[in-house]
Amino acid sequence: MRLTQYTDYSLRVLIYLALQPDRRCSIQEIADKYEISKNHLMKVVRQLSSAGFVDSVRGVRGGLRLAVDPAEINLAAVIEEMEPDFGMVECLRADNQCVITGPCKLQSMLRQATQAFLDVMREQTLADLLGPQERERLEMILIS
Amino acid sequence: MRLTQYTDYSLRVLIYLALQPDRRCSIQEIADKYEISKNHLMKVVRQLSSAGFVDSVRGVRGGLRLAVDPAEINLAAVIEEMEPDFGMVECLRADNQCVITGPCKLQSMLRQATQAFLDVMREQTLADLLGPQERERLEMILIS
Repeated sequence: MRLTQYTDYSLRVLIYLALQPDRRCSIQEIADKYEISKNHLMKVVRQLSSAGFVDSVRGVRGGLRLAVDPAEINLAAVIEEMEPDFGMVECLRADNQCVITGPCKLQSMLRQATQAFLDVMREQTLADLLGPQERERLEMILIS
Repeated sequence: MRLTQYTDYSLRVLIYLALQPDRRCSIQEIADKYEISKNHLMKVVRQLSSAGFVDSVRGVRGGLRLAVDPAEINLAAVIEEMEPDFGMVECLRADNQCVITGPCKLQSMLRQATQAFLDVMREQTLADLLGPQERERLEMILIS
């Protein structure tokens, strides 16, 4: 059971930006610090921006910063925005061809379990990832 | 967020076998009824067998049947057995290289959320998928 790399990277971008509220950051810089591909981050940042989590400005004085306070960014909302689907099994996906889809109760059970997963994440915001101790240690790794 | 096709297929195999407690079934027959690849089912059945869910006998009079009562087959136990991992993000996987792994609290949050998912499934057994109504409708599709 996995989230996509896309969602994983989006959470890393938000953490990075939350550490630096006073300046705009570049995608290249985020890619460098996390040692991940800039190309992968481009699409991630575009969606974070269109979803209202990130404020993105083009140009020489441009760059990225959080569009709202970290305490306003709910982690379940980020996951729900960034995951392509919650198709735990075939019958929960658009291209479903499972022959027992009608009478099989797995669909409703797995929907309920997925909600329980999201409900746990819904209790957390980006700010909860960044207590004083975590912030200090994250800054040592990412900002130097 | 998805389970693997491997786990999806394992649940279908268990449903099929639960509908026919009085005879042994072949992998070919299960593949045909679900219109899925026999090759994909071979490995699934081998693991279901080694995990003690399925009793598999080779030979002309051989075949598959459930090794235990459907009420004894917990759906969380099946998912835990069949999923290769619960690596929701990179830091929860064996090949983790995320640079913020130490101070980042996502790992523990996502572990807790995954447990909440599994806890919902742990309330259900294979028998719960097969109430009288569901059984009748499933038999109409799969056994004819």
